[in-house]
Amino acid sequence: MALLTRITGPRDLDRLTPEQLDQLAREIRTFLVDAVSKTGGHLGPNLGVVELTIALHRVFDSPKDKVLFDTGHQSYVHKLLTGRQDFSRLRAKGGLSGYPSRAESEHDVIENSHASTVLGWADGLAKANQVLGHDDHVVAVIGDGALTGGMAWEALNNIAAAKDRPLVIVVNDNERSYAPTIGGLANHLATLRTTDGYERFLARSKELLNRTPVVGRPLYETLHGAKKGIKDVIAPQGMFEDLGLKYVGPIDGHDIAALESALTRAKRFGGPVIVHCLTEKGRGYQPAVQDEADRFHAVGVIHPDTGLPVAAAGLDWTSVFGEEMVKLGHERSDVVAITAAMLQPVGLQKFAETFPDRVYDVGIAEQHGAVSAAGLATGGLHPVFAVYATFLNRAFDQVLMDVALHKCGVTFVLDRAGVTGTDGASHNGMWDMSILQVVPDLRIAAPRDADQLRAQLREAVEIDDAPTVVRFSKGAVGPAVAAVGTAGGMDVLRDPGDAAAGRPDVLLVSVGALAPMCLEVADLLDKQGISTTVVDPRWVKPVDKALPSLAARHRVVVTVEDNSRAGGVGSAIAQALRDAGVDVPLRDFGIPPKFLDHASRNEVLAEIGLTAPDIARQVTGLVAKLDGRYGSEDAEERAAGAARD
Amino acid sequence: MALLTRITGPRDLDRLTPEQLDQLAREIRTFLVDAVSKTGGHLGPNLGVVELTIALHRVFDSPKDKVLFDTGHQSYVHKLLTGRQDFSRLRAKGGLSGYPSRAESEHDVIENSHASTVLGWADGLAKANQVLGHDDHVVAVIGDGALTGGMAWEALNNIAAAKDRPLVIVVNDNERSYAPTIGGLANHLATLRTTDGYERFLARSKELLNRTPVVGRPLYETLHGAKKGIKDVIAPQGMFEDLGLKYVGPIDGHDIAALESALTRAKRFGGPVIVHCLTEKGRGYQPAVQDEADRFHAVGVIHPDTGLPVAAAGLDWTSVFGEEMVKLGHERSDVVAITAAMLQPVGLQKFAETFPDRVYDVGIAEQHGAVSAAGLATGGLHPVFAVYATFLNRAFDQVLMDVALHKCGVTFVLDRAGVTGTDGASHNGMWDMSILQVVPDLRIAAPRDADQLRAQLREAVEIDDAPTVVRFSKGAVGPAVAAVGTAGGMDVLRDPGDAAAGRPDVLLVSVGALAPMCLEVADLLDKQGISTTVVDPRWVKPVDKALPSLAARHRVVVTVEDNSRAGGVGSAIAQALRDAGVDVPLRDFGIPPKFLDHASRNEVLAEIGLTAPDIARQVTGLVAKLDGRYGSEDAEERAAGAARD
Repeated sequence: MALLTRITGPRDLDRLTPEQLDQLAREIRTFLVDAVSKTGGHLGPNLGVVELTIALHRVFDSPKDKVLFDTGHQSYVHKLLTGRQDFSRLRAKGGLSGYPSRAESEHDVIENSHASTVLGWADGLAKANQVLGHDDHVVAVIGDGALTGGMAWEALNNIAAAKDRPLVIVVNDNERSYAPTIGGLANHLATLRTTDGYERFLARSKELLNRTPVVGRPLYETLHGAKKGIKDVIAPQGMFEDLGLKYVGPIDGHDIAALESALTRAKRFGGPVIVHCLTEKGRGYQPAVQDEADRFHAVGVIHPDTGLPVAAAGLDWTSVFGEEMVKLGHERSDVVAITAAMLQPVGLQKFAETFPDRVYDVGIAEQHGAVSAAGLATGGLHPVFAVYATFLNRAFDQVLMDVALHKCGVTFVLDRAGVTGTDGASHNGMWDMSILQVVPDLRIAAPRDADQLRAQLREAVEIDDAPTVVRFSKGAVGPAVAAVGTAGGMDVLRDPGDAAAGRPDVLLVSVGALAPMCLEVADLLDKQGISTTVVDPRWVKPVDKALPSLAARHRVVVTVEDNSRAGGVGSAIAQALRDAGVDVPLRDFGIPPKFLDHASRNEVLAEIGLTAPDIARQVTGLVAKLDGRYGSEDAEERAAGAARD
Repeated sequence: MALLTRITGPRDLDRLTPEQLDQLAREIRTFLVDAVSKTGGHLGPNLGVVELTIALHRVFDSPKDKVLFDTGHQSYVHKLLTGRQDFSRLRAKGGLSGYPSRAESEHDVIENSHASTVLGWADGLAKANQVLGHDDHVVAVIGDGALTGGMAWEALNNIAAAKDRPLVIVVNDNERSYAPTIGGLANHLATLRTTDGYERFLARSKELLNRTPVVGRPLYETLHGAKKGIKDVIAPQGMFEDLGLKYVGPIDGHDIAALESALTRAKRFGGPVIVHCLTEKGRGYQPAVQDEADRFHAVGVIHPDTGLPVAAAGLDWTSVFGEEMVKLGHERSDVVAITAAMLQPVGLQKFAETFPDRVYDVGIAEQHGAVSAAGLATGGLHPVFAVYATFLNRAFDQVLMDVALHKCGVTFVLDRAGVTGTDGASHNGMWDMSILQVVPDLRIAAPRDADQLRAQLREAVEIDDAPTVVRFSKGAVGPAVAAVGTAGGMDVLRDPGDAAAGRPDVLLVSVGALAPMCLEVADLLDKQGISTTVVDPRWVKPVDKALPSLAARHRVVVTVEDNSRAGGVGSAIAQALRDAGVDVPLRDFGIPPKFLDHASRNEVLAEIGLTAPDIARQVTGLVAKLDGRYGSEDAEERAAGAARD
């Protein structure tokens, strides 16, 4: 790491020779494999952009010029070149974020990590430069997969409209986002690849691959298409031409000199221009290159030599869902599946292999996933759209206006719901149970364990006249939690026992995977002499009709959910109680309405007080207050002193 | 109307001669001008699609074939041809909807009225046909303006990916959606127009225009571009070619025979195909054709001969906002404005005329509006994005992940918030104050009158480190409502007077334009001997810190908002009271969580019980219960009997 450790900022790159730059690229690859195999993270994407990032920082002058990365999981190299080389706590509490972070560096701009937004950001920044008379450059790096998102189209259409507003768009084309990129655009990009520059790229790749023996289908066979002509100059071409955008490419994305040449021309052009770069995801790391499926897009802790996981994978929510989907597919020929470019991460791989004609990868296009689901349902099928909870936000209007308004039987399966932790603020699935509350007739299931997930998924796909949602956590599924009884449609998980004859103190409403924690809360309360009933509503929207009368038989109601407190399940239950005239005091526990820094899930939960001891302590205080044990504390004074949020 | 009245369904069109079809088109235009001038409605768009709709229903066999209209405000002709010719109560309670409606007809499929969704629906329906082995046709009509929406791109990309899945896309190209269509796509469409078919279209238009003397810039001058070649056959072309979509066109959209010929070829093609039709918005109605600005996109009640409004326009919320924006623009050079293809409807026309370099029409692209706003703010400006409240739903993720997460000072001005009425379910702006509750640090202002709108807009643009929202109603702004005092940051609108010495009964929290109604509630309560304080929080998010202590000095808290009850302002206040340990009973009034049928605003408010007498009656009951006047009614029994929603 002789060179890398001497790079403290982008300008340190200026004085390196071509040979040193190649050496630096090799050092960075070694560093990435070594570091990320210890912590987990996005390995494949970063191995693919080593040369590109070096070239960007040599041609552009960050932070004066704005170098923007879409999605942001390919910003590790950028971090290394901008003074951040301690990867020992990558994605861990207090360590480097797995995405760009304004708090970390003035070189970081966009930290949202939701795809397809970078061109919109670039358009806004370029417009601001124009209004303010600044001559800073704006360069946006976007993957071919992210171009399938509608936001990219909206932005391209706007960028192309202003011929005199400089803006450089780098398309990082690795022919795959999470999965091979689908759709008409992919075909068009494949055509653009078929040029002289492409041939040179092939020759180089072949050479590299021949030096490094590779099992499986070699890269150069995956790059397909017929010759069209030499276009490796600033010249309009194809679709981008039709929109009025200048086009440079394709460029070998692992040839630093070629990249610098193209980027320099683009920078000088004086208007919007696209630089089309061909890169190889997982480049230089044999286990990644050999893995045709996803090239080590994101990994846990792995053995650096083999790429094999260190910890054996346990049963996780995603695979429970995936297996049940295959069963459902066999039983019901009308069940079809949708994914937004995440077939494998959402557990639909097996379904796709078993029913290839009944699965739709729509690209990074959640809006289309939801709208086309409405069409599929209206056409007589029952679509199951599996998506990370945080990404459903992008299809909120379509869930409301297309699916719900038209009473379509569509099931949304929200993976990675609740606190996910290490990926930081934008990957927590903590908004779904709030924003979906307003959607008429939509039903939300929050299964507490694997059996419930299977059962509730089945209940959901039985509903053919309204949207249904099944949401579950990230990672390993906990042990089964048995019901000891029922109340309406709810499962009673714990009966207060002797106290039940009288009026028990607490009704604790547990949402989804928090059931074991809620039972622990009840045990802790028990030790304080506080009797507690624990129920799992299973379906948290609508509020179970039996809940108000059950609540009225307790002295206080406590709700616990892995979702934003603002407008969440607790709020909905409180409203249901008010509507029923049940004025039993209620306290709702959940995630405070703020963005959460990256840390492990348990660290985040501890930080926000969503732990059994924290909850038990607060409930104990509340019951004590009701008992008058605190004396005649004046509510008004307490209220005046209470801080919001 | 000799022919029109004999059309009871699409198949009645089959036996008409070409001359009769032309006669029918004339009758329909006369009918539309006559009917819509009496009720108000979308006149221009429907005058433009008379021949197109006739041709669609002759070539396709609805309802077996699915004829889909994007946005749906151009479905009047479709209604006339599918058995719905009583337009006397168009958009009024119990009358025809202004959009397609499944409840009205089996010929209607999509009723959402949010633009750019039709291609997603078509893709889903075509996929369902393929899975189920149906040979029904799917044809989707989309305007050139709606193609600027990201959803259209996502859908095109998916549709193009399946060469063997039949689907006909009709691009209804009138070179304008609400305003002249912007961006790269518009330029491309302009190029496509420059063909032999276009020349024929020009010749016919010229002929027609010569027969009907027209003041103002003639149509053929607005269609611009240079010759390229004859493409009026099924042949790939331009951008659509690049995506792999077959292209037919351009077709004269007012030539029924030409349309039928093109649609028939497209129908037989066996794969996805685009039919590019050129139409003239407002066709045949002189006042519309003369109005270059928006061709009578949507009108109120007008004089049919002149097109002039019957009622004089009063001061409305939109123009108060528009005028204040011009003042702000003069005072602050960093204030810029954004609209999503609705410059005039959201009141930004004057700002655009005064500051043409500081206004951005992004197309029908709310996502881009929000993301580019984040870029503008990061670049040093303060963007004001004016948008209908219902359409902000489409940018929810971008408000959260791009604007709020990055602490960008962006002001969202939500017009048409609350119950709007006549446009039906999808145009009510009743979700914003719920879903935005989860957005950290975002502040929401709900001004109660024109002065407050001006003041709060100014307060909003002063905030440069967080998103702000200013939301107001549709239509006329009411009289000023004076404050009699303040409490924290809140305005006290009514003091309970003598009772204030003791503990007043009711704290009534009024949101926005409902202030006069809330004062009326207080008067009604007064007559029942119930003392009431009325406050307007002005900023409804976050909850004012002074509210809990004020609430604790009352016996009951009542909130009234023009927004969904689910997770709205009432819920947020209830949660703030719980957090402060103030367990004063609260009742929250608002819009129930269901879709609202079209009717006047007042009819809708009456139907959902959001009127002063309704609220006063319920509050009186609640206070009586607290007084024990109802005797020892058991809360548990009441709860068991209470129906949810």
